[in-house]
Amino acid sequence: MAHQPGRHFLQIPGPTNTPLPVLAAIAKPTIDHRGPEFQALGREVLAGIRTIFQTEDPVIIYPASGTGAWEAALVNTLSPGDRVLMVETGWFATLWSRMAKRLGLEVELLPGDWRSGVKADAVEARLGQDRGGAVKAVAVVHNETSTGVTSDIASVRRALDRAGHPALLMVDTISSLGSIDYHHEEWGVDVTVGGSQKGLMLPPGLSFNAISQKALAASRDAGFPRSFWAWDEMLAANANGFFPYTPATNMLQGLKVAIDMLHDEGLDNVFARHDRAAEATRRAVRHWGFEIQCADPREYSSALTAVRLPEGHSADRLRAEILRRSNLSLGNGLGPLADRVFRIGHLGDFHDLMVTGTLSGVEMGLAACGVPHRPGGVEAAMSYLNGNLATARAAE
Amino acid sequence: MAHQPGRHFLQIPGPTNTPLPVLAAIAKPTIDHRGPEFQALGREVLAGIRTIFQTEDPVIIYPASGTGAWEAALVNTLSPGDRVLMVETGWFATLWSRMAKRLGLEVELLPGDWRSGVKADAVEARLGQDRGGAVKAVAVVHNETSTGVTSDIASVRRALDRAGHPALLMVDTISSLGSIDYHHEEWGVDVTVGGSQKGLMLPPGLSFNAISQKALAASRDAGFPRSFWAWDEMLAANANGFFPYTPATNMLQGLKVAIDMLHDEGLDNVFARHDRAAEATRRAVRHWGFEIQCADPREYSSALTAVRLPEGHSADRLRAEILRRSNLSLGNGLGPLADRVFRIGHLGDFHDLMVTGTLSGVEMGLAACGVPHRPGGVEAAMSYLNGNLATARAAE
Amino acid sequence: MAHQPGRHFLQIPGPTNTPLPVLAAIAKPTIDHRGPEFQALGREVLAGIRTIFQTEDPVIIYPASGTGAWEAALVNTLSPGDRVLMVETGWFATLWSRMAKRLGLEVELLPGDWRSGVKADAVEARLGQDRGGAVKAVAVVHNETSTGVTSDIASVRRALDRAGHPALLMVDTISSLGSIDYHHEEWGVDVTVGGSQKGLMLPPGLSFNAISQKALAASRDAGFPRSFWAWDEMLAANANGFFPYTPATNMLQGLKVAIDMLHDEGLDNVFARHDRAAEATRRAVRHWGFEIQCADPREYSSALTAVRLPEGHSADRLRAEILRRSNLSLGNGLGPLADRVFRIGHLGDFHDLMVTGTLSGVEMGLAACGVPHRPGGVEAAMSYLNGNLATARAAE
Amino acid sequence: MAHQPGRHFLQIPGPTNTPLPVLAAIAKPTIDHRGPEFQALGREVLAGIRTIFQTEDPVIIYPASGTGAWEAALVNTLSPGDRVLMVETGWFATLWSRMAKRLGLEVELLPGDWRSGVKADAVEARLGQDRGGAVKAVAVVHNETSTGVTSDIASVRRALDRAGHPALLMVDTISSLGSIDYHHEEWGVDVTVGGSQKGLMLPPGLSFNAISQKALAASRDAGFPRSFWAWDEMLAANANGFFPYTPATNMLQGLKVAIDMLHDEGLDNVFARHDRAAEATRRAVRHWGFEIQCADPREYSSALTAVRLPEGHSADRLRAEILRRSNLSLGNGLGPLADRVFRIGHLGDFHDLMVTGTLSGVEMGLAACGVPHRPGGVEAAMSYLNGNLATARAAE
Repeated sequence: MAHQPGRHFLQIPGPTNTPLPVLAAIAKPTIDHRGPEFQALGREVLAGIRTIFQTEDPVIIYPASGTGAWEAALVNTLSPGDRVLMVETGWFATLWSRMAKRLGLEVELLPGDWRSGVKADAVEARLGQDRGGAVKAVAVVHNETSTGVTSDIASVRRALDRAGHPALLMVDTISSLGSIDYHHEEWGVDVTVGGSQKGLMLPPGLSFNAISQKALAASRDAGFPRSFWAWDEMLAANANGFFPYTPATNMLQGLKVAIDMLHDEGLDNVFARHDRAAEATRRAVRHWGFEIQCADPREYSSALTAVRLPEGHSADRLRAEILRRSNLSLGNGLGPLADRVFRIGHLGDFHDLMVTGTLSGVEMGLAACGVPHRPGGVEAAMSYLNGNLATARAAE
Repeated sequence: MAHQPGRHFLQIPGPTNTPLPVLAAIAKPTIDHRGPEFQALGREVLAGIRTIFQTEDPVIIYPASGTGAWEAALVNTLSPGDRVLMVETGWFATLWSRMAKRLGLEVELLPGDWRSGVKADAVEARLGQDRGGAVKAVAVVHNETSTGVTSDIASVRRALDRAGHPALLMVDTISSLGSIDYHHEEWGVDVTVGGSQKGLMLPPGLSFNAISQKALAASRDAGFPRSFWAWDEMLAANANGFFPYTPATNMLQGLKVAIDMLHDEGLDNVFARHDRAAEATRRAVRHWGFEIQCADPREYSSALTAVRLPEGHSADRLRAEILRRSNLSLGNGLGPLADRVFRIGHLGDFHDLMVTGTLSGVEMGLAACGVPHRPGGVEAAMSYLNGNLATARAAE
Repeated sequence: MAHQPGRHFLQIPGPTNTPLPVLAAIAKPTIDHRGPEFQALGREVLAGIRTIFQTEDPVIIYPASGTGAWEAALVNTLSPGDRVLMVETGWFATLWSRMAKRLGLEVELLPGDWRSGVKADAVEARLGQDRGGAVKAVAVVHNETSTGVTSDIASVRRALDRAGHPALLMVDTISSLGSIDYHHEEWGVDVTVGGSQKGLMLPPGLSFNAISQKALAASRDAGFPRSFWAWDEMLAANANGFFPYTPATNMLQGLKVAIDMLHDEGLDNVFARHDRAAEATRRAVRHWGFEIQCADPREYSSALTAVRLPEGHSADRLRAEILRRSNLSLGNGLGPLADRVFRIGHLGDFHDLMVTGTLSGVEMGLAACGVPHRPGGVEAAMSYLNGNLATARAAE
Repeated sequence: MAHQPGRHFLQIPGPTNTPLPVLAAIAKPTIDHRGPEFQALGREVLAGIRTIFQTEDPVIIYPASGTGAWEAALVNTLSPGDRVLMVETGWFATLWSRMAKRLGLEVELLPGDWRSGVKADAVEARLGQDRGGAVKAVAVVHNETSTGVTSDIASVRRALDRAGHPALLMVDTISSLGSIDYHHEEWGVDVTVGGSQKGLMLPPGLSFNAISQKALAASRDAGFPRSFWAWDEMLAANANGFFPYTPATNMLQGLKVAIDMLHDEGLDNVFARHDRAAEATRRAVRHWGFEIQCADPREYSSALTAVRLPEGHSADRLRAEILRRSNLSLGNGLGPLADRVFRIGHLGDFHDLMVTGTLSGVEMGLAACGVPHRPGGVEAAMSYLNGNLATARAAE
């Protein structure tokens, strides 16, 4: 396809716009993955990635995209037939539960309305009934990428604790890691699943399992056949900065740069920057007169906003028109939200003018497609951004 | 300096945002400038660049930035002490006239108000008085980068013709080439000066002289000492695709890609895209309540807009604040316009969302700096862009 | 680590030296993996990769490194407890058999001497005894990367046919694909496993399963739990150029370029170029007076040569010295060959001067480390290369 | 032209193989050349380039290739009709003298045999006769790129001093800077001319004038018309890290990286590495039985070696065959040496295996073209390199 003038705005909720220094690092020549230069790199990224998960526990880096890390979390800790409690927060929670079923786990999916996050009370209630400890793991999504809802993981941890239930707690942070504050260790998560292509600002191709000591212990008795995903050989090789099989060398070169960039900015500043872009986006959406898919403001996602179009208007037609006119990619509605919802990604390597540029593309698309709306959404976003200098300054 | 989150908006009126395929071409390994691979490249760019000047006359490519091509135009065609008629359209016309003086030419600078272009009548009148043919060249700027005024070069040609004057016509198109329609041959220009870093979407480092047969003839009698800039050896070597001394090989690799990109889009579409960005920008400026430096709408530049701030407000403070807050670079006021005017570049590899992103950065900066203005400029730009679908479609 | 002067010579038997156009393609911005631009790319690489496996059967592209494709081949076609016949050609065959055991398969490993390839007769004899059809698959390595031995896969196919045995035939081509002639379809292979980082000249991070109709049928009854590796959802999504979960977008951008480069050169020319580099390398090795690990000239690998050092000399010390002195990475001996053997990779984006440069680095290292050898190996290689013009010309 | 397999060996005596980190820096987005980020860059490169010339005197950086810096040296210090004493060391000295004549200088060219460097005695003798001080400048080439002869500049300085002559001393270091030890200040040079595309490992497009206080004083009275090349405006703007007209921004980004790389290695190590590559090359050449163009071993160039072919053999045919067969570019014979001589560049980002790879390409080409020679040149080079460990180690 020919180059369209100007930069593409990749505002799906991931993969995100990869910064040029990261692309440059990925484009450096491949090095010998068994040599001393690689060893130094391996040690650096294996240590560095823990700081992003905010943990001192080990983090496994897979040369595979994020879905693989979902599978890894399950097959390293559980056995076929084990019961897993999951929560239907949206499309990705549903996909993960389907994977679990497909792998032969007994999945219990607490139903959800796709507009809210994990209800800790419901988890606690369900676990309270499980006197026999049949539930081996509770697996939830931190930031549900299909709905723009962020769940309170600390509250889920407390629910398990209050229920006095020994289940493992597994959390998918694929679309929150590096964008929304997350504490693998402080929040007592046993396996955190992450991916490279969102807040970490890399292309897809790496994924992660952060692992608690309890999860590690569980992995010794886990009955699933596994080899590629197996933690034990990974951890053994990682101890020296190496990997048991060929790693994705060039992606690791990029990962090193991405981690450095996040720390140069400061994780707190990174999170504040995402909060700011998210609130600006919501101001525009509300001004236009649309509903935000996430029903509870306390659960708004700082990584993406899912927008509900009025009945009778096709979100997919709108997205196609916006792509055609404005060289802007937006996320589609998934599952029951197909064609009803579009999603604006505001995560990764992103700043104010990309927020307003994105919103202007949406607003012009709305007009072009004849979707009734109140013009002025971009100005509403700008007013917020401008009135919010303290945050902006802190984020510098 | 550390990477700031998100993409820098380089909206000075050049250098412009270099497209990634051009940067990739420049970053290819340097090749032997006397070998067959280079020869093919040389032939391709020497032919291609003529299509951008819209001429079949030869175009010299210097491995030097644009100022050098100004000097080349003068020293190849004139002799020390020759009289040159120039027109004070703004800072760059003034700089060119200073260079001419410094080189020992007798410069006559028709005074201007820095808000309008070349008055063909005034040129005709002056030449009409020059019965003895003392004026050897008329040298004007097509698009005055300091003011955002585009002069009507065809009318200047007609002025010379009506005056029946034999002076050479020289035109600086550094900030218009590849952005604003320009016809070296059809308009009867003798030497057109161009540069790489604006509409051609390259970094600075190449510059051009398009040469009429009349200019070529004049060069045989021209009395300036010259070697690096000398046309004769260039043309001789260019005949085979080579250069008499080491060319800027990697820049030529980029030039090939840039020319292909312009033709892929279609020159007419490129010009229409610039017209559209310019009008959108002016709508915002007027909405804010500011004056456009260019006084005559027929002379509005499609490459940049110079904006006059109200008395008592510092344009430089505004620009610094916008750079700090929004990672957006704008052009400063030059000469008498220093601190009074700021300039928005809307040229090169640019599209709608970069227009609106840029304008939103300006509007937020105005608010932050307390410059009185009417909010809503971005929406005004969007209304125009949206109401202007036909042009947008044509530009696809 | 600081830049060492000059280019690193990455002459391990993969990952290989990635060509700059491939690196440039990988460094292009990530695109929306659900958009139309991606769809065109997906269709192109899914069709293109089949031409490299020389088949019209489907080829699955995993966003994971090669070891994953080993696992995928097994878990898609077999059930826990199934019997697999493997052949101990060297380290990688052994690793694959360990993986199979770890996954719960019953592995029968025909013993080997690590100096020769698969003996079709032995396979036929073993299958002839398997009247009950207990063996569900025969899994062999085409090019054993630890020893530099290439097995005759067509003969293995004939062995199965002669035995009239219904087992699936699985072949690992990770270090041969794109370097040594291979015919998935013509040779009747059921699952071919491949990777990106050798003959395909990409960094590690993609891997492949080429699948026969028989393998596809077997996958419907296969009892292993699987999801990430599952063929069915892949094939369904691939039908439209898409993937069921996030693919390694940027690697696919590189894959497209790499496939085009292989076809621009012509697969036959690519294979001839590898044969030529391999023979030149062997001439040097023999001249030095060393034994080649591969015992049978008919099984010499065109992708790498494993060299046996005389007793009492450490191959690892030699490699370390060569890396330090000459910025040249060589492969180490694996398993029982550790420190006894070093491996010279001569595959991927490679030509005569890289062969001689590599060999000179080895020869200088031998002298520096006091390993007794006959000097003149590089000249021996050059004599061969020079006397072999026809091949060189054909390969142009 | 399609990608040929493997890396091109660009072994002309410049442009040289650009290191990937330098190419990556050049491919970073262009920045505002009037903004604070540029100012920091400007200050850094303006300070850094002095360390390469080994001087605290100012160094002008032109956005133009090297030939421009020749012109700049002349027009800034001299007046039309001034007498310049030059020495015919080869093609580039001749070209520079032609340029001087073309510019209107009175050139006196001490004849040379194209096999030796500047004879300080001859210079002294000539200046001794110039009682009236008619000679305003002595201009010589440090490393004559056409012959591979390096002149002793300190001895030329002493010649001027002994003659008590006030002429300015100008030296071209285009093909020695950053490869061969050079001291602008200590050697009392008034104007040193340099370029980016050789030892500085950049593409062509930047050139330099290092300026003594005496040269600066002379520039105030110099009578040549000049503007682009004028030192005064450059120095004024440089004081703040800026440039009077648009600089070659992206090249400066690369220059910063290149200077850092040279200092990371250490200038003395860089020079020793070049000496080593040069001696290895000469060992091969002598072994083959060919004459080195440079007649006096004390004047051997460490940047390139010009090789004389036996009568009746075409150097150009040899080069063409080597390029076709081995993807290796060599330098051609220039002027009277055309087709008699070929030149091997061994400068810039270069190490042992590139030396031997290059020499092997030459040796195979000699055989292919039927040029009588004694095989074994590469081994001779290797013996030297291997016997020369101390230097190699020091160079690490």
